Amino acid sequence: MAPQYKLTYFPVKALGEPIRFLLRYGGIEFEDFRFDRENWPQIKPNMPFGQVPILEIDGKVAHQSVAICRYLAKQVKLVGKDDWEDLEIDAMVDTINDFRQKIANYHYETDEAIKETRKGPLFKEILPFYQERLDAIAKSNNGYLCSGRLTWADMYFVGLLDYLNAMAKVDLTEKFPNLQAVKNNVLAISQIKEWVAVRPESEF
Amino acid sequence: MAPQYKLTYFPVKALGEPIRFLLRYGGIEFEDFRFDRENWPQIKPNMPFGQVPILEIDGKVAHQSVAICRYLAKQVKLVGKDDWEDLEIDAMVDTINDFRQKIANYHYETDEAIKETRKGPLFKEILPFYQERLDAIAKSNNGYLCSGRLTWADMYFVGLLDYLNAMAKVDLTEKFPNLQAVKNNVLAISQIKEWVAVRPESEF
Repeated sequence: MAPQYKLTYFPVKALGEPIRFLLRYGGIEFEDFRFDRENWPQIKPNMPFGQVPILEIDGKVAHQSVAICRYLAKQVKLVGKDDWEDLEIDAMVDTINDFRQKIANYHYETDEAIKETRKGPLFKEILPFYQERLDAIAKSNNGYLCSGRLTWADMYFVGLLDYLNAMAKVDLTEKFPNLQAVKNNVLAISQIKEWVAVRPESEF
Repeated sequence: MAPQYKLTYFPVKALGEPIRFLLRYGGIEFEDFRFDRENWPQIKPNMPFGQVPILEIDGKVAHQSVAICRYLAKQVKLVGKDDWEDLEIDAMVDTINDFRQKIANYHYETDEAIKETRKGPLFKEILPFYQERLDAIAKSNNGYLCSGRLTWADMYFVGLLDYLNAMAKVDLTEKFPNLQAVKNNVLAISQIKEWVAVRPESEF
């Protein structure tokens, strides 16, 4: 019997969406359990290190979204062809997370005065720094982020993109045609196109 | 001919030390290039995404310390026995980095008033939350963090520990005997013991 998969997360895309992309890409059936935010205080204490998403596979609990994505990428054959390519993919995914963290440091700051001081550096320096370099990499890889072909780094980036855009309140790929190509390449995959058409609506 | 390895980093342990541990563990010769802090402004623009450590292997540049560690762990056989064990190791390493990030958010805050507001939550809630859970995991794995035996997650944790302790200004394992066991198990490995005896002195 095929393993039973259950994803547990907030009713949003965010860190859950790259996992959903990979499951869908591989044609893996899964329960997409989205809990109401009001139930989080009851759920949190039962999560490993108090965090979601988690993915249960035949009842065994996996946590940490990037680790889950890497595991699924092996199952659905979106990894590198050798250890060096896997290293490049891993470095790209961790770089995307650095990028995410820098946007999150701004977005989630609750003190408006502090938030305002972070705005200039983020939008004038940090975002362009990452966008230019990522775009150049996507150009040299023909519209993918690594290895000149589709890998789980592309699925991770595009799966996360709505969340990144929502936090930054801009379209981060707008002026970067090669990052747009990455986005278009992933969204053109038939399994992903189907998923995007049927997935529940959510703000980010 | 064996590949040529060159590590480039600040003259500290910090994010470079887990890489050095893994290289030493595997008996891999490497150039341990430690640049002076005053030269960082000249070096930074040439680093991928402006960050170190990098590891050059026959001139090819690898970046992102965790990705480098995972690559080296494959070479020196400190990975899991299957994809599920690798997932558990990856999740542990990312959890250690969450822990590091939370300490760093306090340590690197330059506004003393903000730093003071973070102190209580960090030391009364966040650190014990992680320490207790990590200690329980180390207990159930007989003094290791994953799989009941030495993996690169242990090398990563112990390699990083002086840096974590320096940022927190406490011995994070002091009251946690199972985390001490992880530390002792790694530091008892002959290659690591030799390295610790000869490595350059640094504050963290």
